[in-house]
Amino acid sequence: MKRANPLLNDLQSVLPQIAANASKAEELKKVPQENIDLLKSVGLHKAFLPKAYGGYEISLPEFCDCIAALAGACCSTAWAFSLLCTHNHQLAMFSKQMQDDIWGENPDATASSSIAPFGRYEETEGGIIFNGDMKWSSGCDHAEWAIVGFLRDNPEGAKDYCFAVIPRSDYTILEDWDAMAMKGSGTKTLAIKDAFVPEHRIQKAKDMMEGKSAGYGLYPDSKIFYAPYRPYFASGFAAMGLGVAERMLKVFKEITETRVRAYTGAKVGAATPALMRLAESTHQVMAARAFMEKTWEEHAAFAEAKRYPTREELAYWRTNQAYSVKICIEAVDRLFNALGANQWYLDKEAQRLFRDSHMTGAHAYTDYDVCAQILGREIMGLEPDPTLL
Amino acid sequence: MKRANPLLNDLQSVLPQIAANASKAEELKKVPQENIDLLKSVGLHKAFLPKAYGGYEISLPEFCDCIAALAGACCSTAWAFSLLCTHNHQLAMFSKQMQDDIWGENPDATASSSIAPFGRYEETEGGIIFNGDMKWSSGCDHAEWAIVGFLRDNPEGAKDYCFAVIPRSDYTILEDWDAMAMKGSGTKTLAIKDAFVPEHRIQKAKDMMEGKSAGYGLYPDSKIFYAPYRPYFASGFAAMGLGVAERMLKVFKEITETRVRAYTGAKVGAATPALMRLAESTHQVMAARAFMEKTWEEHAAFAEAKRYPTREELAYWRTNQAYSVKICIEAVDRLFNALGANQWYLDKEAQRLFRDSHMTGAHAYTDYDVCAQILGREIMGLEPDPTLL
Amino acid sequence: MKRANPLLNDLQSVLPQIAANASKAEELKKVPQENIDLLKSVGLHKAFLPKAYGGYEISLPEFCDCIAALAGACCSTAWAFSLLCTHNHQLAMFSKQMQDDIWGENPDATASSSIAPFGRYEETEGGIIFNGDMKWSSGCDHAEWAIVGFLRDNPEGAKDYCFAVIPRSDYTILEDWDAMAMKGSGTKTLAIKDAFVPEHRIQKAKDMMEGKSAGYGLYPDSKIFYAPYRPYFASGFAAMGLGVAERMLKVFKEITETRVRAYTGAKVGAATPALMRLAESTHQVMAARAFMEKTWEEHAAFAEAKRYPTREELAYWRTNQAYSVKICIEAVDRLFNALGANQWYLDKEAQRLFRDSHMTGAHAYTDYDVCAQILGREIMGLEPDPTLL
Amino acid sequence: MKRANPLLNDLQSVLPQIAANASKAEELKKVPQENIDLLKSVGLHKAFLPKAYGGYEISLPEFCDCIAALAGACCSTAWAFSLLCTHNHQLAMFSKQMQDDIWGENPDATASSSIAPFGRYEETEGGIIFNGDMKWSSGCDHAEWAIVGFLRDNPEGAKDYCFAVIPRSDYTILEDWDAMAMKGSGTKTLAIKDAFVPEHRIQKAKDMMEGKSAGYGLYPDSKIFYAPYRPYFASGFAAMGLGVAERMLKVFKEITETRVRAYTGAKVGAATPALMRLAESTHQVMAARAFMEKTWEEHAAFAEAKRYPTREELAYWRTNQAYSVKICIEAVDRLFNALGANQWYLDKEAQRLFRDSHMTGAHAYTDYDVCAQILGREIMGLEPDPTLL
Repeated sequence: MKRANPLLNDLQSVLPQIAANASKAEELKKVPQENIDLLKSVGLHKAFLPKAYGGYEISLPEFCDCIAALAGACCSTAWAFSLLCTHNHQLAMFSKQMQDDIWGENPDATASSSIAPFGRYEETEGGIIFNGDMKWSSGCDHAEWAIVGFLRDNPEGAKDYCFAVIPRSDYTILEDWDAMAMKGSGTKTLAIKDAFVPEHRIQKAKDMMEGKSAGYGLYPDSKIFYAPYRPYFASGFAAMGLGVAERMLKVFKEITETRVRAYTGAKVGAATPALMRLAESTHQVMAARAFMEKTWEEHAAFAEAKRYPTREELAYWRTNQAYSVKICIEAVDRLFNALGANQWYLDKEAQRLFRDSHMTGAHAYTDYDVCAQILGREIMGLEPDPTLL
Repeated sequence: MKRANPLLNDLQSVLPQIAANASKAEELKKVPQENIDLLKSVGLHKAFLPKAYGGYEISLPEFCDCIAALAGACCSTAWAFSLLCTHNHQLAMFSKQMQDDIWGENPDATASSSIAPFGRYEETEGGIIFNGDMKWSSGCDHAEWAIVGFLRDNPEGAKDYCFAVIPRSDYTILEDWDAMAMKGSGTKTLAIKDAFVPEHRIQKAKDMMEGKSAGYGLYPDSKIFYAPYRPYFASGFAAMGLGVAERMLKVFKEITETRVRAYTGAKVGAATPALMRLAESTHQVMAARAFMEKTWEEHAAFAEAKRYPTREELAYWRTNQAYSVKICIEAVDRLFNALGANQWYLDKEAQRLFRDSHMTGAHAYTDYDVCAQILGREIMGLEPDPTLL
Repeated sequence: MKRANPLLNDLQSVLPQIAANASKAEELKKVPQENIDLLKSVGLHKAFLPKAYGGYEISLPEFCDCIAALAGACCSTAWAFSLLCTHNHQLAMFSKQMQDDIWGENPDATASSSIAPFGRYEETEGGIIFNGDMKWSSGCDHAEWAIVGFLRDNPEGAKDYCFAVIPRSDYTILEDWDAMAMKGSGTKTLAIKDAFVPEHRIQKAKDMMEGKSAGYGLYPDSKIFYAPYRPYFASGFAAMGLGVAERMLKVFKEITETRVRAYTGAKVGAATPALMRLAESTHQVMAARAFMEKTWEEHAAFAEAKRYPTREELAYWRTNQAYSVKICIEAVDRLFNALGANQWYLDKEAQRLFRDSHMTGAHAYTDYDVCAQILGREIMGLEPDPTLL
Repeated sequence: MKRANPLLNDLQSVLPQIAANASKAEELKKVPQENIDLLKSVGLHKAFLPKAYGGYEISLPEFCDCIAALAGACCSTAWAFSLLCTHNHQLAMFSKQMQDDIWGENPDATASSSIAPFGRYEETEGGIIFNGDMKWSSGCDHAEWAIVGFLRDNPEGAKDYCFAVIPRSDYTILEDWDAMAMKGSGTKTLAIKDAFVPEHRIQKAKDMMEGKSAGYGLYPDSKIFYAPYRPYFASGFAAMGLGVAERMLKVFKEITETRVRAYTGAKVGAATPALMRLAESTHQVMAARAFMEKTWEEHAAFAEAKRYPTREELAYWRTNQAYSVKICIEAVDRLFNALGANQWYLDKEAQRLFRDSHMTGAHAYTDYDVCAQILGREIMGLEPDPTLL
């Protein structure tokens, strides 16, 4: 039986309005401000905010259930907002000083990100000078900070994959988001020019995977911060894939119940192929949910036990999610492909779910070709392939 | 070995410009006039125009190869224009008087259609008065006539499925086309109000399936008109599915050859999963083409022999096409799903191919759930199910 | 985290010998006596035996984990023995008198079954006279009783689906089991001639679904008997599908690790396609397990709460299992199809897993075409179709 | 339209008896002598025998149609006999002297093979001494000769893949064939001990791919011998996959027409899922046939034109066949998986088709994981991977 999830209950109350704004989000090419206001009003952004700043520190399973529900209302909003939320988990691994910079005055502040290590930098007194056009920063229009990736030379002559955190005043946002799906996610480019980043706002990715970053140990009673950042960072993808698919099950039923075939007037809803498609997609989505819940519970149990996962365990956690995304897309396709041309008009929900669903699988993190190789190598006892990340 | 196809050769010369107009077609939500002019300049619209009016009367296999090539350049244009072409085949089964009305002065004239039997009519002296908002009339902006469907009471107390042909002056076009794919097809609604249709512009669908319509026998030497109208009418759907898929094979190769993974710099083009996806989709599309060519050749052979197909043969012809569409979509999905998020920007060709490909399977005629039942019943020797059409 | 499962621990100790007997089981076309002895020595047959007769009354999730493990060793043995076990659950819903007949002297007694309602009967004083060649009675060679199905006329002029329980002395076993898979299950025909069945050994199926049978309430503290018989009866099918698939994951790894290609000497185990197949099947089987565990926990929670499921809940329970069987077969196919011809020799485990896996999906209860329709109708709010059972 | 195929007509007359022998072939673990006699009586073994020895030199498309038909009757027989036939094509590329050795006295003589290069040899005066347990020699019980593979050191310090031809008196046959499918193919091991092979019975594989072997040019008017040996050698695999699948379509229809569900008495043949499965598998098999016919016609056209294929063309030819085998297996699975447990008895044809179908895809030549990589590399312009053969 599932635990109580009071944040989910609160969230449900604002979802109808967020669903009503879905087309508007697509037109704006970013999350409507009203959606942000509604989600902050119920406190979803505090899910992973340290309690020290008034946050909730809810469990990963609770959070993912919220994101799945949100994605069923507007996947673009879920995409952007879930990242704003999970970034808080990552920020809690930075120095106390940085956390104060961000949340000291404004505990509602959030950060967007662009974590591929494409930033350029120069070392300078007390930190670095950062430059770069940092792409794919979902939700940036609504964030006060940005987390950006770069490769920093280390004394051993190698490079460390690092993150720098930069305030909104130090970059501009390019209006370059115009995609086939997740249209409202506002996944734009941050143009950063000669931004000084003090050392206390820089951390190595590896340290944040292993409990060695500056913020480690700040919150000894926390049940969520003794955990690698990445599984939390990326947890929304599978939740969104699930949420869209669960919504599609309902939409398919609603459309099909009343649909008649144009040429014959036959009722589609009682026709065997429609029934079978609905049943199979229902089973597939239920299996995906059961698999994710089990995986998320494992994440939570590890964090509670302050136990960091092995490389193999991390491989399962990530790739389980990618697999779940993949089968949720299959479930959506099976339904959308049988809905007929009427559902292709841009004012119909089904076609938006179809587009957004497919895009949950287009992220590098959920690329199943890559994930299948990663897990396959782990199971077969081979060394990780550095070209697969 | 394939026959020579001079029209295809001519067509190739205009395809680069049509491909260049693909985004423009999406913006306009109809086929750009330039595309129409280019296609008429090479005479594609004369493919099924009777030789008596200067047409070519080319074979179905030749025509379908043209449409596949055109779909590879711009599927919206192919969708609209192939229908304008195949409607000529249907019009050639109407009375000589109507053909003179249409082509006597203007042999370049074409007709769009809306054939679902949703028109309302009243009998009147010498014909009928027709009313209706007739939907899904692809290419209507560029057509001088329209073919529209309705159910007409017959003396036996039943209803005949009939077509009426109406000049452009008798209807207005509603600007209601705004869909997720085939955006440039201009598939709008014809608003017809109190249009008088003289008897010589009306035919029963059934008569045009069985060589009993008013135009039967007008062209004794023709190799294409001793054939039911519907297989010709619908032949473009499979050709378009094929053309889009064949184009996707090339696009995938081009993108993947040079693609590197964002986080690792690894070359995707030499990676095994990409190679295997490309190979499997190549085989699948080749199989679809071989299957379609064999089916199209059978259509052509029957017409040459003035042999009308049985119900079972018709079931194969139609459903073979739907199956081909289905596997071409699978081939496109296998490739697009592995291309990464960069190809989701609206200025990328791959995402347009993905969208248009899926829509080739959304037409009632290519609905594989319906088609599989139709063929299954024929094979098992069951009576046709009237709710399946 | 999973509950402790002491019976599973005990069972593990005898599985190696049962695995070693797998070929022998295929040759004998029945479960080897040694396997039965081993399984009874650890008490697996007492899983659902009432505590009143020394049984364990373990939970459904615990039982299913045992059956999955057993199926990984020898699926034929699991098939036969799991039915002997689950029949005990059903027998516990009959009259106290009958339970004493069976277990009073011999609490290790079990029953095989043939439940399709094909028996013939005549009413007689105090019971019925039963006749019939009752097929598909797995494990009958090792059972002291049989449960057999028939349709009995009721006073309302309709027929009740009933079960009669008959001792081994009242029937002979036909040696007619010779199948492509589950060879060792000994699924033979019971030839029953003029067997008298007293009324206290007859129950209606419907009553056993709804807590209305003669045995209802006999065991007020039980956590498993306040439940419909059928979900318990059939719970082994999904467990076996899972167990075979989980075993196949290991076998594939073992074979592939050391396999080289005949013509090139290339190591298959490090080849990308093998890695990806192994990963995808691993994910698929993990998803199936998570889905089944969640379903089984729901069964258990209902029984503990003495809550009987609605028709819709029953539809999910059954069809969830059929779906799980289906995807486990897919997972096995993905692996077996890539193992090469060497694994097709009859002394190789992989080919046996492939055959047995497919047969888990061939039972009427796990027929997914039927199950998808059943669930689809429930979801769409349609009445059950009586032809689908 | 297809060409006339008189050999196919003759073959049809003996197929009913060969079909009747199918179970016997499985029991014998080799092709019954009667089948060999019947096939030789209609001259199928002369399909690729040089006309100089009384052969027919029919085209590849004609031959493949014969093998597909034969596979529909008994796939084990087809497997063994088609190899005996295609080996003749290969033998016709050896020296005239060797051809006289084989066919001079007995033009009905055939050869089985074991071509993986696992033979050991020593150079000796005038030839080599050959040793080896040569596996997988289908049909060896009925062959007068054997073609065996080995790697021979060449003067450049590398190894040439070569074939030696050895008479039946120089080896013994090990009775080691006991497999899950193709049981009647008699695919046993040839135990060869110190066999002297004169130089005129040895050829390099590469020379036989490029028109450079000793027999090149012997038959200037032939339309089949100016061709690489391998595509002919392996052509039967796809034909057999097709033949089994085409037979399964008929068997499914026959079974399903009269099948009723055990528990409900419902007619399965009129049920929508059965209809849809039959239709989809029919389409899939038709597509496979169209694809293969086009490929086989290309083989024939090249040979007629004495044109040797490029490496890329060879890659398509081989992998097209493997793809066809793959989709034919899918078509068979879709049907068998819905036939119910009654068809699993070993005396039912459907289960044999299922087993044999899967095995057509288990040969190294039809391994689609390998084939997809081979073709993918060719399309992407990569060098061949030597580990993929």
